[in-house]
Order: sequence, then C-alpha cells, then structure tokens
Amino acid sequence: MFTTVAIQGQEASFHHIAARQFLGKSITPVSCDTFADTFDALHKGQAQQAVVAIENSLFGSINEVYDLLLKHKFWITGEVYLRIEQCLLGIQGATPEKVGEVYSHPIALAQCEQYLEETLARAKRFEHHDTSGAAADVRAWNNPTKAAIGSRQAAERFGLEVLAHEIETHKQNYTRFVVLGKDQQVNPAANKTSLILTMAERPGALYHALGAFAKQQINLTKLQSRPLIGKAWHYIFYVDVDAGLQQPAMQAALTDLKAQDCKVNILGSYTSGR
Amino acid sequence: MFTTVAIQGQEASFHHIAARQFLGKSITPVSCDTFADTFDALHKGQAQQAVVAIENSLFGSINEVYDLLLKHKFWITGEVYLRIEQCLLGIQGATPEKVGEVYSHPIALAQCEQYLEETLARAKRFEHHDTSGAAADVRAWNNPTKAAIGSRQAAERFGLEVLAHEIETHKQNYTRFVVLGKDQQVNPAANKTSLILTMAERPGALYHALGAFAKQQINLTKLQSRPLIGKAWHYIFYVDVDAGLQQPAMQAALTDLKAQDCKVNILGSYTSGR
Repeated sequence: MFTTVAIQGQEASFHHIAARQFLGKSITPVSCDTFADTFDALHKGQAQQAVVAIENSLFGSINEVYDLLLKHKFWITGEVYLRIEQCLLGIQGATPEKVGEVYSHPIALAQCEQYLEETLARAKRFEHHDTSGAAADVRAWNNPTKAAIGSRQAAERFGLEVLAHEIETHKQNYTRFVVLGKDQQVNPAANKTSLILTMAERPGALYHALGAFAKQQINLTKLQSRPLIGKAWHYIFYVDVDAGLQQPAMQAALTDLKAQDCKVNILGSYTSGR
Repeated sequence: MFTTVAIQGQEASFHHIAARQFLGKSITPVSCDTFADTFDALHKGQAQQAVVAIENSLFGSINEVYDLLLKHKFWITGEVYLRIEQCLLGIQGATPEKVGEVYSHPIALAQCEQYLEETLARAKRFEHHDTSGAAADVRAWNNPTKAAIGSRQAAERFGLEVLAHEIETHKQNYTRFVVLGKDQQVNPAANKTSLILTMAERPGALYHALGAFAKQQINLTKLQSRPLIGKAWHYIFYVDVDAGLQQPAMQAALTDLKAQDCKVNILGSYTSGR
C-alpha cells in the first residue's frame, strides 16, 4: 500500500526529502505548486497526508503556513528537521570554473550569495520556481556551462554531478516540516504538542497563559504571534511545548488555561523530531 | 528647512502618506525600491529620517523590517497607523463597467480579491511593483478601459478619478509604520517603548521576562519572535510596551530583566500613534 503525500514542489525537492524521511521511501508524492494547494490536496482527499515547511532557522516562521493551519483543521502527526545543504549541480564534465549560467529558486540563490559572488562571480543568475525543476532543466540542456543549485538528492534523481557542496552561506540552515493528516490521532508516546492560544483581553494575559505551562515545568520551544483577523492589533499565539497531550502536566496546564478564559485550539500532539 | 525622508515606494504611496501624516507636508521624500534600500538611505545620510511599514493588521509583521531594525542600530522616534483604503482609479469618463484591465501591486490586488471577482470579473489583472506607479501609468495611457488600484492620494497626485472606493475585502485593514532616525532622542513624554529581548537559555525564561513587565502593570501591545541567527531554534523577541523609557515602572522592569540575565536592546521610545 502506498501513502499519497501532498508536498509543495516536485520530486527530489526538500519537501519530498522531508516526506520520505518521515513516511518512508515508498510514498507517492502529490506535487503542488503552492502551500495553499498542498493544504487543498489534503482537504479534497487527493492525498492522505501532507508535509509542509513551517519554519526555517534563518528566515523564521512561514506565516502563510501558520495561517493555513488555522484555516484547515488538520492534525499535526509529526515533525521533521532537515539540514538544508545546497549543492552546485551540473552534467558530467562540468566544473565550477566553466559555469556561465546558474539556475535555482530565488531563496536558494540568496542562500548561496557568498559562493556566487566569490566563486561564480562571472556566472549569470537565473531564477526558477523550483530547485528540483532547475536541476531537471540543466539535465535536459546537457550543457557544461549551465548549472543548478539544489540538493544532493536532485543530483541523484536527475543524473547530475555535485560540482560543489555546502555552498550555502550560513551552515546553520535547517528547516522544520510538519506532517499533517485528517484524523486526530493522539499518540500516547507523544512528547510535543502544538496549539493556538487566544487570550481574553486583559493586561498580562500572555504572561499568565505562559505561566500555565511554566508552573507545570513544561518548556516552550516556540511562540509565534499572528494577527487576529477582523480585530486590528489583537493577536493569537501559536505555541509548541515539550509535553504530550495525554501527559498529566499538560492536562493540568490546559485546565489552568481554561480557568483563565484562554481559548485553546490543539493543532496536534506528536513525537519531537529533534 | 525641508526634512528628507526615505520611504519605500514613490510619491503618493502609503509610505509617503504615513510620512506626511507624521512629519508634515513639507517633507522631501527620498523614494527607495526596497526596505533594505530605505534603511541604507538613512545609513548613508541620503535622508535624515526614514518611515517604514512594520506590521499590517491582516498580514502581520513584516519580518524583513524587524530584521533590518536589528541590523541597523537606528532609533524609533514615532509610529503612524494608517487605514489602508483601496480605490479603483481611472481617467475622467471611465466607469467600473468599462474597465478591461486593472493594474496594481500584487498585495493591493489580493486585498481587493472579492471586488475584482464580483464587480470587475471581466477585467484582466496586471501586476505592478507599486500602486502609485500603476496610477501614473493609467494617467499616461489616458484610456478609459484601463484602471489602477491605489489610494485616494494617488488619484489626486496623478489627476485620476476615484471610480469606486473602499474596495478592499477586509475593512479592518490598517498598517503600522515606524519613523526612524539616527539620534537616540528620548522624549520625556513618550508612553511607548520598543525593545528586543534575548533571554538566557533556561525553561520558563520568556515567562519570567514578561513577568518583569506584568509586575509593573506595564501592558504588552506586541510580541514578535524572530530566529537568533547562528543558533538554530533559538529566538529573540521584539516587544512593544505601553510605557515610556524614562517612566519609573519601565526602569524597574529593565532592572528586573538585567537581574534575569536577559539582554535588552532598546529600539526607541515614543508617543503612541493610536
């Protein structure tokens, strides 16, 4: 049986790598152009699960994905952390010195700014909507002066050589992905929970809400504010905590939040991917 | 004497409107293409002040601007809240029914999605890098079938008619701008302070940091996390509080934070614009 998984991007994209890492190599990817399309594919049943990037260690939260998590009531069943290693990819016989044109997604190009300026100073840069698609094009063109920036997996997938690796400027470049499904599976072994807090309107409300976790010795790993739509300058808070939903400390924290008139939406409870 | 003010966008853009509202109508705008260019113009002395959008009530924080505030050590001297009203602009004699092509910034087009689908269903949409530039083009083309989406001020500036107003889907559409300068002016009448908190690494650190303000009855109006670059999955927190820097309660909160080993960067202290 093959699991169908909606991902943003094509085969051998970082989303595909993350999905395979979590769900296994036999998955069938359902390639989507945008994050909204990826959520829609799960919603319409075109895929059984979805894997979406939610945060990058350099660029921060992907706000669009946070907003889509609120809109669709899916369930986070897991998370994957991926080191983003960028490579220069070309056909056999190509070398960095020969490259006159380099193709990739604008973010990947930006991530390799230093390498491009120092080593590929003479190469012209071209934007592509997808790192994996750029690799496919370089393969098809079969020209040693054209290169793509992408993953090692894209090199394997399209039969290209890795001409240079770890060419990203900041090596501490990680992306966190979440795995989404439609069923609210609560794994008893879960040690992490993601939730949205909507506080009553009073001074110190956020402080007291965070106190519900602090009093139970539950560590916060992430706090992301987003606007409350329809009420200018009011916010909701996306929180990740190091505790499973079924743990007594977590249940105590939720009881405390309820007593504070703080609305809680559980987005999922799962095993930490770190 | 004219104050030169770096803004993103052209004359009659929302940045220009915000700058005039805060600094007066005699300012000389220094038009910049990007937020980074706007900060650079202030840095290089091409402008004495800068006005940059920092947050929208629907789209949330503009992360790029938060990161630029950390990079450049400028001082926030004020804030401006602007209701974003979008209008359909055309030449004299044009009507919404006649419009076959509509031009604007992609965000402005997205903000008017409902109007475009319902009333301008037959019109083709074209993206422009600037609402104000789109208005200038519509003026130059002098063709009643072409319209722009932009501000009332753009209509005045370029001699266009407002064919329809308040065409944005969500009326609660406000943008907050900050005014930046190089001198650390501390206004004794200031009642708001923006700062960055970098906490020591321990569970409950954010809760205790927010406690420093809660204990002094200082209200938080905004909390925005951003990644700490170079240390994956660690964060810094941008905080806005309802207290001037020189107020005793604020000084007590800062002393408390220092005792907690929490690093504080003051970004500015100013009078609330609301």
